[in-house]
Amino acid sequence: MKPDIIQELIEITDRDRVLDSLDERYSYSYDASFGTFLPDVVVFPTSAAEVAKIMKLACREKIPVTPRGGGTSLSGGPLPVAGGIAIVMTRMNKLMEIDRDNLVAVVEPGIITADLQKKAEAAGLFYPPDPSSSSVCTIGGNLAENAGGPHGLKYGVTKHYVIGLEVVTPQGEIIRTGGMTVKNVTGYDLTPLIIGSEGTLGIITKAILRLIPKPAARNTLMAVFDDLIDSGRAISGVLTNGILPAKMEIMDNASIRAVEDYMPCGMPVDADAIILIEVDGHPVAVEEEIQKAAEICQKYNVREIKIAQNETEREELWKARKLVSPAITRVKPTKISEDATVPRSKIPEMFERLRQIREQYNVHLVVFGHAGDGNLHPNIIADARDIEEMRRVEEAVGEIFKAAIELGGTLSGEHGIGTMKAPYMEMELGTVGLDMMRRIKQAWDPDNILNPHKIFPQPGQTRVVLTQ
Amino acid sequence: MKPDIIQELIEITDRDRVLDSLDERYSYSYDASFGTFLPDVVVFPTSAAEVAKIMKLACREKIPVTPRGGGTSLSGGPLPVAGGIAIVMTRMNKLMEIDRDNLVAVVEPGIITADLQKKAEAAGLFYPPDPSSSSVCTIGGNLAENAGGPHGLKYGVTKHYVIGLEVVTPQGEIIRTGGMTVKNVTGYDLTPLIIGSEGTLGIITKAILRLIPKPAARNTLMAVFDDLIDSGRAISGVLTNGILPAKMEIMDNASIRAVEDYMPCGMPVDADAIILIEVDGHPVAVEEEIQKAAEICQKYNVREIKIAQNETEREELWKARKLVSPAITRVKPTKISEDATVPRSKIPEMFERLRQIREQYNVHLVVFGHAGDGNLHPNIIADARDIEEMRRVEEAVGEIFKAAIELGGTLSGEHGIGTMKAPYMEMELGTVGLDMMRRIKQAWDPDNILNPHKIFPQPGQTRVVLTQ
Repeated sequence: MKPDIIQELIEITDRDRVLDSLDERYSYSYDASFGTFLPDVVVFPTSAAEVAKIMKLACREKIPVTPRGGGTSLSGGPLPVAGGIAIVMTRMNKLMEIDRDNLVAVVEPGIITADLQKKAEAAGLFYPPDPSSSSVCTIGGNLAENAGGPHGLKYGVTKHYVIGLEVVTPQGEIIRTGGMTVKNVTGYDLTPLIIGSEGTLGIITKAILRLIPKPAARNTLMAVFDDLIDSGRAISGVLTNGILPAKMEIMDNASIRAVEDYMPCGMPVDADAIILIEVDGHPVAVEEEIQKAAEICQKYNVREIKIAQNETEREELWKARKLVSPAITRVKPTKISEDATVPRSKIPEMFERLRQIREQYNVHLVVFGHAGDGNLHPNIIADARDIEEMRRVEEAVGEIFKAAIELGGTLSGEHGIGTMKAPYMEMELGTVGLDMMRRIKQAWDPDNILNPHKIFPQPGQTRVVLTQ
Repeated sequence: MKPDIIQELIEITDRDRVLDSLDERYSYSYDASFGTFLPDVVVFPTSAAEVAKIMKLACREKIPVTPRGGGTSLSGGPLPVAGGIAIVMTRMNKLMEIDRDNLVAVVEPGIITADLQKKAEAAGLFYPPDPSSSSVCTIGGNLAENAGGPHGLKYGVTKHYVIGLEVVTPQGEIIRTGGMTVKNVTGYDLTPLIIGSEGTLGIITKAILRLIPKPAARNTLMAVFDDLIDSGRAISGVLTNGILPAKMEIMDNASIRAVEDYMPCGMPVDADAIILIEVDGHPVAVEEEIQKAAEICQKYNVREIKIAQNETEREELWKARKLVSPAITRVKPTKISEDATVPRSKIPEMFERLRQIREQYNVHLVVFGHAGDGNLHPNIIADARDIEEMRRVEEAVGEIFKAAIELGGTLSGEHGIGTMKAPYMEMELGTVGLDMMRRIKQAWDPDNILNPHKIFPQPGQTRVVLTQ
């Protein structure tokens, strides 16, 4: 990077908010997905005005810009693939307001998701989106990727809780979308267009989030099944009997065994599947619904049902589910975490397809995730240094995407496309569908400055995990 | 219209699905807003393939195309302002599927909203969006305008229930957005971009709608206030005490008097405001919440509270609210129905601003609407033949928009922009904000064929109700 650009960035921000040494830049070259890409410079703005000035500079000099939050992306969103400027938003982390009268929170993008959740709860309110990384990820990253989580089933995902944004455009102009009201039909709805656009259309500098009253009670049930197909039928049975659980999670046999090897939780290692069902709402409704869910599970050959008798037991039941991710990385160092999503009625079929993929490509495939909304997490555990294994992983990943789309689903439910799924976009969207997205990118960012190499496949790009 | 174009439309569809006589065209020249604009030809497609062929023809010949559903728009969306082809979607009205396992309905756009609601209820499910015109409007129109309704408070608006679309692009290509899963982050979220775009970006030919379990119980409370400000405080009090009502509606004194003059319902004509609160959910929760809401109203000097003791009484309480619209049109023949929306905490202030506007411009202004989400309906009753009065109405309308924006709100909560609010877009969005929307329109429809003269103001356009 030319010294005068560095100097200009320092003038816009501050000497200690511009990092240009190799070791500092290396710290911002990776995320929780694959590959490392060195930015030429890292800058930490503290206001929308600074972000706007940085964008104007980048626009004038045609320098690529990649925005970044906590760096927890599983799809490559924050990777500075084309080098240039990495804009790290973590110092814009203020909770500007929790407005109880209007049930909204106004936040800067760098706030940690769990911090917002806690502050909303302290005000008797509830911010439902709950990505697993909530204790370390930022709201800005959640917005850029339209993050989901277990609560998606009942409460929807990040985009359902955003009613307004302040955004810096690729040309460095500050615009506002939406506003302080849930109802707003003044022109095109740019808010959900920017949410999930992975920082390719603008940089979010402020968000107005919708909060809801905190549910009065909740409880959890664990059901153990000898047959995965039965667990799938039980899930469907619960949902078609008027119950909308807050969460409904599944772990397959490989997940159960990985957890019990890592930190024994007393789960039966011979079970084919375990499902966890949490309901929330009025205490009487919670009690009735948890009993009804248990009765429905009985109809589908459940081996064992545990209903939490208190909050400690409820937390205990969720412990195993939370341990799946750390547990499986003990097996091998490289984790490819997918989030292919299918209509929930297709979950048993998707499990069958995943079993076939595991056998055909001889990969270590573990399946768990958000069964209630069809958002599974097939994780492949491998060793990136083993090229032969990675070739099989590459093929298996392609087959997972193909299976999801053939079953009426989608490449990605909540992780985003980034670099990790771009080559498969046309398979789901068709040439014209993808072109209509590209037209928006070109209309907003004709020089392709903002987060290039994301979402849209590069010419000839076919691989996602193999680099050689 | 050239005879060979008519002939080509007949070949694409059928002789009896192409109307070109003056009287037939006149029937499709207006909606529920202002002005009449004759289309050159009216065509009734029965499939996406036909819509695509019509668009390819229009694209080749650069003929304006205006899609239309039930024609109930209050903002001018279906008006064929530039003539050309009116595409009426009412024959594509099939309910293709209610999928109880996946909690979705797949519909063609011409289905009447109430028909879908009834069929969902028959399957034990619930489609919450409830525009007042639901017995005559179409889902396609609801999608195009992102329709709202009283349920917006608890359940959100149309866009929150659409997970996938089939759309014919301005170039006559058929694309699909989203899909059968609630979670989907595969590229830009085109679904909510098309929803509310008023037929300017594409023609919706199929929609995948999300349904939810039907609430087990519901009840309604009516509270009568001597002071509008107190009613506003009661509304805020209910919402900040952990209750999220299904609906929360308000009628001002002018609305109450109009209804009692039209069809007496036993409401006190000297009351300053009446609010209706409906809660739904588990029967025990409903009972508790309705009592708690009553207690909260007591704190704010309520004159009288009625709680429905059965379904008949519940319907009786809602009767007056439903009569407001027909009642006020008895006063004078022309109704200008606005939907300026403010943060709900600003409702008392908005009422005060509306009172000032009524006095200053000496207009017959009636206010009712969805108080819980800040979506008020200031309606001006006038006579379009009285030019002097319409000049005052024109100014009053501008002042209503200005008040809403100054209080942090928006021009339109649920009716859309169409022709009726286009001149005010820049006031809310700023030059750059509006330009970012225009860039999308230009990228998708460079020849401006699809529904021209909507959303974006024409050069020099300043008036919305005055035509001379």
